[in-house]
Amino acid sequence: MNERRCAICLLSGGLDSTTTLAIARDEGFDCYCLSFDYGQRHRIEVDAAKRIAQRFGLEHRVVKIDLRMFGGSALTGNGIDVPKDRDAGEMTLGIPVTYVPARNTIFLSFALAYAEVVGASDIFIGVNAIDYSGYPDCRPEFIRSFEQLANLATKSGVEGTRRIAIRTPLIEMTKADIVRKAAELGVDLGLTHSCYDPDDSGHPCGRCDSCLLRRKGFEEAGLADPLLALP
Amino acid sequence: MNERRCAICLLSGGLDSTTTLAIARDEGFDCYCLSFDYGQRHRIEVDAAKRIAQRFGLEHRVVKIDLRMFGGSALTGNGIDVPKDRDAGEMTLGIPVTYVPARNTIFLSFALAYAEVVGASDIFIGVNAIDYSGYPDCRPEFIRSFEQLANLATKSGVEGTRRIAIRTPLIEMTKADIVRKAAELGVDLGLTHSCYDPDDSGHPCGRCDSCLLRRKGFEEAGLADPLLALP
Repeated sequence: MNERRCAICLLSGGLDSTTTLAIARDEGFDCYCLSFDYGQRHRIEVDAAKRIAQRFGLEHRVVKIDLRMFGGSALTGNGIDVPKDRDAGEMTLGIPVTYVPARNTIFLSFALAYAEVVGASDIFIGVNAIDYSGYPDCRPEFIRSFEQLANLATKSGVEGTRRIAIRTPLIEMTKADIVRKAAELGVDLGLTHSCYDPDDSGHPCGRCDSCLLRRKGFEEAGLADPLLALP
Repeated sequence: MNERRCAICLLSGGLDSTTTLAIARDEGFDCYCLSFDYGQRHRIEVDAAKRIAQRFGLEHRVVKIDLRMFGGSALTGNGIDVPKDRDAGEMTLGIPVTYVPARNTIFLSFALAYAEVVGASDIFIGVNAIDYSGYPDCRPEFIRSFEQLANLATKSGVEGTRRIAIRTPLIEMTKADIVRKAAELGVDLGLTHSCYDPDDSGHPCGRCDSCLLRRKGFEEAGLADPLLALP
């Protein structure tokens, strides 16, 4: 009998993290989902994460932290607008104001605590370094460095009882690849939320980087976004 | 005119972090203090941190996070007792149950976010690898790894505008060295709190690892602990 393999899956409720979760399950992992209610203006994504974890029938924890107390981002500060209608060229011009200082470092740190307690060997995170917004903490070198840290930071790492792997199955995929992979695994992407700046009823703005990258992904994959088909 | 140098100082309210803060100030840093209300059973240390930051006249933020949701430690779980009356030999026998999974990784991650927003170049943390409880995330190799991560994780690291240093002035000091250093810098150690398991009125138990290490430090330094002189 094979040993039970557990993974922590960071689940924002978006397209990428949901597809990553589906990949982890497809690999046979028992998945524990972890989301963050961090003061993001698109807090509605947490509700999407809850629906997705429920659909998969998985344990799900939502960590409440207030990253607004530090500010410094359009996603958590009230005074900074989310950029709209940027083209692919503009998106590659440096790190945008939607970058949240140290966010993935913080998220992975909590995932590491959770992994240590439940005995998970793998932490899945849906970062992507192709069709992305240029965030420093989505790059492969950041992930490799965190993996190294994780194995020095923990009891299991020190005692040599379990090695922690940070898993990023999407990191070299295009957005179209991700949409195709989700379709192949039967993921209901109508449950996900991607927009940084939804209206009060939760509808995506269609113009922020996240909406534009999502649209590009579906178009290039030749598939319809079920989210846009909703009434 | 010299450039203003800012530092984030992790301040638990104990002997080590308070002495570390005094060292950072002595080096000429503008210090921003950061504490965590994380569900620790000795939550009273947060009040000590507030008094200390106030005494120094410094900006101080308290991050509220719930590490009880993961458990796995005598400091955050209700079902695990804090060990008492261990001798120095017993303290070196592996990682004790007071270890909180990934705690310093989480604390440093928040400090990194704070550093990025205020433009701090240095993060001070009062870890010690001599008279300590054997926690994996107090070791020099962990700190070096986090420093490497910090410079990959952030905008300033990527753009090469500012390098982040993780500063651990106490790491190779004995507890007696730390007590002497605090005295030399005029730190009022009567403001600090070290005990893992205080009684309801906040008095130290005198028997947990933290109390025992503190007592040893004062004894070897030939100084009286002002905390024990209080009525």
